[in-house]
Amino acid sequence: MANRQVLFARRPNAAVAGGAVTPDCFRFEQSALPVLQPGDVLVRNIYLSCDPYMRGRMGESRSYAEPFKLNEVMPARVVGQVEQSRHRGFTSGDYVWGFLGWEDYSVAANGQGLNKLADTVRPISHAISVMGMPGLTAYVGMIDIGQPRPGDTVFVSAAAGAVGQIAGQLARIAGARVVGSVGSEHKRQHLIEQLRFDAAFNYREQAYGDALDELCPDGIDVYFDNVGGAALEAVMPRLNTAARVPVCGMISQANGAGGAGIGNMAQIVAKRAVMTGFIVYDHMHKLAAFQPRMHGLLETGAIRYFEDIVTGLENTPNAFIDMLAGKNLGKRLVRISAE
Amino acid sequence: MANRQVLFARRPNAAVAGGAVTPDCFRFEQSALPVLQPGDVLVRNIYLSCDPYMRGRMGESRSYAEPFKLNEVMPARVVGQVEQSRHRGFTSGDYVWGFLGWEDYSVAANGQGLNKLADTVRPISHAISVMGMPGLTAYVGMIDIGQPRPGDTVFVSAAAGAVGQIAGQLARIAGARVVGSVGSEHKRQHLIEQLRFDAAFNYREQAYGDALDELCPDGIDVYFDNVGGAALEAVMPRLNTAARVPVCGMISQANGAGGAGIGNMAQIVAKRAVMTGFIVYDHMHKLAAFQPRMHGLLETGAIRYFEDIVTGLENTPNAFIDMLAGKNLGKRLVRISAE
Repeated sequence: MANRQVLFARRPNAAVAGGAVTPDCFRFEQSALPVLQPGDVLVRNIYLSCDPYMRGRMGESRSYAEPFKLNEVMPARVVGQVEQSRHRGFTSGDYVWGFLGWEDYSVAANGQGLNKLADTVRPISHAISVMGMPGLTAYVGMIDIGQPRPGDTVFVSAAAGAVGQIAGQLARIAGARVVGSVGSEHKRQHLIEQLRFDAAFNYREQAYGDALDELCPDGIDVYFDNVGGAALEAVMPRLNTAARVPVCGMISQANGAGGAGIGNMAQIVAKRAVMTGFIVYDHMHKLAAFQPRMHGLLETGAIRYFEDIVTGLENTPNAFIDMLAGKNLGKRLVRISAE
Repeated sequence: MANRQVLFARRPNAAVAGGAVTPDCFRFEQSALPVLQPGDVLVRNIYLSCDPYMRGRMGESRSYAEPFKLNEVMPARVVGQVEQSRHRGFTSGDYVWGFLGWEDYSVAANGQGLNKLADTVRPISHAISVMGMPGLTAYVGMIDIGQPRPGDTVFVSAAAGAVGQIAGQLARIAGARVVGSVGSEHKRQHLIEQLRFDAAFNYREQAYGDALDELCPDGIDVYFDNVGGAALEAVMPRLNTAARVPVCGMISQANGAGGAGIGNMAQIVAKRAVMTGFIVYDHMHKLAAFQPRMHGLLETGAIRYFEDIVTGLENTPNAFIDMLAGKNLGKRLVRISAE
C-alpha cells in the first residue's frame, strides 16, 4: 500500500516572493507503509489542520518551538482512525488525534502523542478545531486572560478565523459587546449574521482607527489580538483604563516583514493595560475540562462554529497558502480520506 | 510677604527646539500671600519634586491626567511645613506633603490633599522620594507586578533615577541578579559601587542588544521599563519564557518624538510574556503599609537612596530640564527653603 506524503522542501525567505509561502516550498513523494514495531500505531489520516502558527516554524529561527525540518513530512495536527495497532491502548477503528503529518497514513511510535476522541467530539473534525486547540486557544485567551465582563466592549481581529470566531462568541455570551475585524465584505456579513457579533468591519475598506472610533465609541476593554501591526497600533490609544490585551498571534508579521513597528506602546502606561502573550501548549491540561463545556455551548447553539474544508491531500499546499492569505472562511482543514 | 511663583507659560511643541522643554516654557512672578479662609492651610514649601511624568502633562493631549493649565503655577509634589492653619487637622509647624506648586508658599484649601509626615519619614525630603511616590512606584512595579524570584535575571532601564535605583535594589534583595542601564560612565559606576547592581552599562557607549547579550547571558525574567524605545526593542527577543515587563514609563518618547516604534512586539507571544502598564496613583492605598517596610530597609542599609538636590526656587526650571536630559544622579529635588 502506497503512502502519499508532502515534504517540507524549501524555507520561505525574503529573497523569494517577499517571504511568502509558495507551492515549491513543498514536495510530493510516495513511500511504502512501514512495518509496525511493537507499540506502534498506524493511523489513517482523515482531516489535517492548517494553522497560522505553522508559518512561524517554517522559518529558520527558533521562536518557542523548533523550526520544521527540511525534507521531512510536514507536521500537522491530524484527526484519523486507527488502521492497525501494536499498542494495547489503541484498537483498530479508534478515532484519534495527534501531531502527525501531511500524508495518507502516519505511524505513532509507541502511540506517543495520540489521543482517543471522547464520544462528545462529533463531527470528528472538531477534535482539531472547536473542541481542540483552536477552541482552547480562544477560551484561554478570552476567558482566562481577557476576562470580559458584562458591559465591556471587546474587539477581536481576524474574527472569522479558527480562533477569532470562538473568542468573539465567548465574549458575547459573557455579556460583552463584541466588535470584529475581517478582510472581506463576505466575512463581515458572516460575523454579523452567523456569528452574531454586535458590529464588524473590513479592514481593507476602512482603516482600523476610523472603524474603531465609529464602532467602539466607549473605548475597548478587551482586545484579542490575532494580527499585531496596524490593528494593535490603532487599538492602543483607544483602550479603556485597565484594559486587557491577550495576544494570541501577530499574523500581520508572519511573512517576516515585521512592519513599521508599534509607535505608541507608551499608551500601555496611561491605560494601565495588561498585554499577555500566550501559547495554548502551556494550557493543554485544561482541555479535559474545556471539552464538555464547549460541547454544551455547541449543543445549545450558544456558540456556532464554521469549518472551511478542502478535499484531497494533493491540495494541502494551496489550502495552507490560501489560509495564510485569509481566503478561508472559518477553520481551514483538509480532508484526506473518508470518515 | 511676597510669594515667588513659577508659572507654566508655554507648552513645548515639536516646532520649537524639537519639542524639548526650554526655560521660556516658564515665567516668574511675585504675588502677595492670600488671606486664609476658614479651613485653609498655608504651607512653606521646602522641597519640590521634579518628576518625568510632568513632561507628559505639559502637552496638550490628555493621557491619564489632565494637562497642566497655562498661566497657572506649575504643580508639583512638595514637602513643607505648615506656616499657618485655619484647619483643625493641621497645626503650625507640622511637616506635610501634597500636590502644591513651584512657589515659596502654597495654600491648601480646606487642607485638601495635604498629608502629615509620619515620624519615620526623615529626612523629610524622603516624603516625596524613597518613602513617597517614587518609592511606592518602584515597589508596586517590581514586587507586585514584576515578582522577581531568587535566581531570576532582572533588567532595569534608567536605573540610577528616582524609581530605577529602588526597583533594582528591591529585585536584588529578592534574590535576583540585577542589571541596569544608565546614560553615563559616572552613573554606571554608581550603580555598581553604591547601589550594588550585579552589572551595569552605559547605553550611550554600548548598544542595548550587545550589552544585554553580554550581561544577561541567561536571558531576562523581569524587565522594569522606564524608557521604552530601543531598550524595549532590545529586551523583547531576550526575554525568558513567562517573563514579566512592568512598564513604569517610556521616557524615550517623552518629547513627543515617538521614535521608530517597536518592531518585534510579536515576541510577547513566543515568550508568553506579560507586559503591565501601571500608574502609582492607582496604588496609593498601599502607601501606609509600604512606608514602615521601606523605612526598615533603609535603616538596615539593605537599600540605599540617593537624592540630587538643587538649591533655590529660581533654579527650578533648569533643574527640571536637566532631569529630563538625564543630568541628575538620583532623585531630583529642589530645595526652596531651609528645613
